Amino acid sequence: MKVVIAPDSFKGSVTALEATLSIEKGIKRAFPDAETIRVPLADGGEGTMENLVSATSGKKIAATVTGPLGKPVEAFYGVLGDGKTCVIEMAIASGLDLVPEMERNPLVTTTYGTGELIKAALEAGYRNFILALGGSATNDGGAGMLQALGIKLLDGEKEEIGFGGGELAQIHEIVVEGLDLRIKESSFVIASDVENPLVGKNGASFVFGPQKGATEEIAQKLDSNLTHWADKVKEVTGVNLHDMPGAGAAGGLGGAFQAFFPAVTEKGAEVVIGYTKLKEKLTCADLLITGEGQVDFQTAFGKTPKRAAQAAKEQGVPTIIIAGSVGKNIEELYQYGVVSVHSIMTRPMALDEAMESASELLEHTAEQICRTYFK
Amino acid sequence: MKVVIAPDSFKGSVTALEATLSIEKGIKRAFPDAETIRVPLADGGEGTMENLVSATSGKKIAATVTGPLGKPVEAFYGVLGDGKTCVIEMAIASGLDLVPEMERNPLVTTTYGTGELIKAALEAGYRNFILALGGSATNDGGAGMLQALGIKLLDGEKEEIGFGGGELAQIHEIVVEGLDLRIKESSFVIASDVENPLVGKNGASFVFGPQKGATEEIAQKLDSNLTHWADKVKEVTGVNLHDMPGAGAAGGLGGAFQAFFPAVTEKGAEVVIGYTKLKEKLTCADLLITGEGQVDFQTAFGKTPKRAAQAAKEQGVPTIIIAGSVGKNIEELYQYGVVSVHSIMTRPMALDEAMESASELLEHTAEQICRTYFK
Repeated sequence: MKVVIAPDSFKGSVTALEATLSIEKGIKRAFPDAETIRVPLADGGEGTMENLVSATSGKKIAATVTGPLGKPVEAFYGVLGDGKTCVIEMAIASGLDLVPEMERNPLVTTTYGTGELIKAALEAGYRNFILALGGSATNDGGAGMLQALGIKLLDGEKEEIGFGGGELAQIHEIVVEGLDLRIKESSFVIASDVENPLVGKNGASFVFGPQKGATEEIAQKLDSNLTHWADKVKEVTGVNLHDMPGAGAAGGLGGAFQAFFPAVTEKGAEVVIGYTKLKEKLTCADLLITGEGQVDFQTAFGKTPKRAAQAAKEQGVPTIIIAGSVGKNIEELYQYGVVSVHSIMTRPMALDEAMESASELLEHTAEQICRTYFK
Repeated sequence: MKVVIAPDSFKGSVTALEATLSIEKGIKRAFPDAETIRVPLADGGEGTMENLVSATSGKKIAATVTGPLGKPVEAFYGVLGDGKTCVIEMAIASGLDLVPEMERNPLVTTTYGTGELIKAALEAGYRNFILALGGSATNDGGAGMLQALGIKLLDGEKEEIGFGGGELAQIHEIVVEGLDLRIKESSFVIASDVENPLVGKNGASFVFGPQKGATEEIAQKLDSNLTHWADKVKEVTGVNLHDMPGAGAAGGLGGAFQAFFPAVTEKGAEVVIGYTKLKEKLTCADLLITGEGQVDFQTAFGKTPKRAAQAAKEQGVPTIIIAGSVGKNIEELYQYGVVSVHSIMTRPMALDEAMESASELLEHTAEQICRTYFK
């Protein structure tokens, strides 16, 4: 019996790796001799770098960079097992978790550190990049990242502007000539599911600004600044970021990559599934167990469990999904080879308790499911 | 594919029949052509009569009797499909549900109506009885029931005592001669899992008194009265009810049957399983689905799901248990042919919401389980 365990994280509760290990324990309780293959997944958000490095037996390289508030932070980039591909997870350099809740303010937070992280990898000779954009603390349009890599953003006095989404209105001129030349020799895959445009009511500032600390007034200001930024970017690159799908990812960082980098965008989960070689690992498996915190009708539109199930189906392997919360209309998933969907809850309990007990609940549920499935 | 559906009730939420129908719906959603056999179960408590009547295609006979507070109530006894066996469910004549919460007081509640119900069945010619004792509002030692059937309970002035556990201290003499002679010609099976003695700290008054409305002071008084009652019963029957296991069932009604009736006690679930012919219905089944509100380590000590699983195991049929709440150490159940145990919860939720949504949750869970099991 061979079972591939490939969940996403259960957000706010357990990482994908922790979920994988708990599910594995449950399987082994039911069938001690079962062969289990661990493939923790991610959707391009937080944990993407860790999972890709661990799945490919790669390594992490440390680099001290400028944090979102301008203070140094100890960051990492990942190098996959192929020794060539780098993973830059923006949240590790410029993420919301690096900013204490009281200090969250996208008027001042910068992506400068993400640029430094890319620069460190370029210095080390890497030219293939995966960019994971989830979990940002920023709304600076990727301006800081571009500054770290040599682009000059000058105000009316020809002075370099400061950090943060609040400064973008000052930009009078973008000088692209200084951009690190090695970027043109490199390839960049943006791993992101975000389809939001840069500006407007569905743009970065109004949709993602509030969770980064923006009041409605600040979001308005940020949106207006990003509009000015997009106008200026268009002047120098010809690229119209305003309405471009995905330009609103990571507070506009996605747009900066699209305008100035040789970058292509792929679905986060697809990138992770590809690099973790999930499909190959599913060969001759009897079952795939995947999951994430919440599974509902939206899952069928492309979240990790559905994409994992599709990969399994291509190999003729059935899928069972485990979730913290199972919503309505999950029937959509059956067409992707999903046998069934199970919540990890064992009794009526509050969300807090469920989150704290997730490891134990995952183990229990995986055990009962395997007992039922493999009887 | 043949699935036997035999849950107990989910107490406070759905009856065994409702649970059965919801599970059946879920199975049919997964496999519209599945053959399903409905066998709602009970443990001798509330619902026992309904379930036995419905499982055997029997009938219910109405009789107006004296309720627990002395006011008339419309009660029923059941006649099984064999046309001979009567089910007397004490809760229908003398149950806690008949007493508004503010009026619950075991000093005054009487089992008189249960006696009248038996009498009505005797009048109709029935001589085989199943006695279901759960859900009582009373703590009168079964005195009221005996009075209704002709036994005289006289005080020091040779006057009949009144109703309720508070009156027992007045008994000076028990006159058994008037007891309905047809009782001796009859057989009585007490369907009960209660093993509590009549008196003492594990007796009826202290253990079950509080849920019937007794304060600690009242419980003390009730226990002392039951002790006097047991002393008097011993004088006339030679039977020592004080420490007798099961004598504390239904506020001492169990003891009255044991002392004055040709009665044998059997486990409630066993009686129901026997009369519903669960074992025969399991012939050639592929799966038994059973369950109840709460399943934990105690379940292995004889609650309905375990006994149903045992019956299935004897027929070579595996069992899956569905519960509202799944506790620890359920591994004990595996030895009885239980494949797995599943909670109906689909996400973190409060008990109230779970109880209100039980039908829907049961349906969903049964569907997912069948999809997993029969894949």
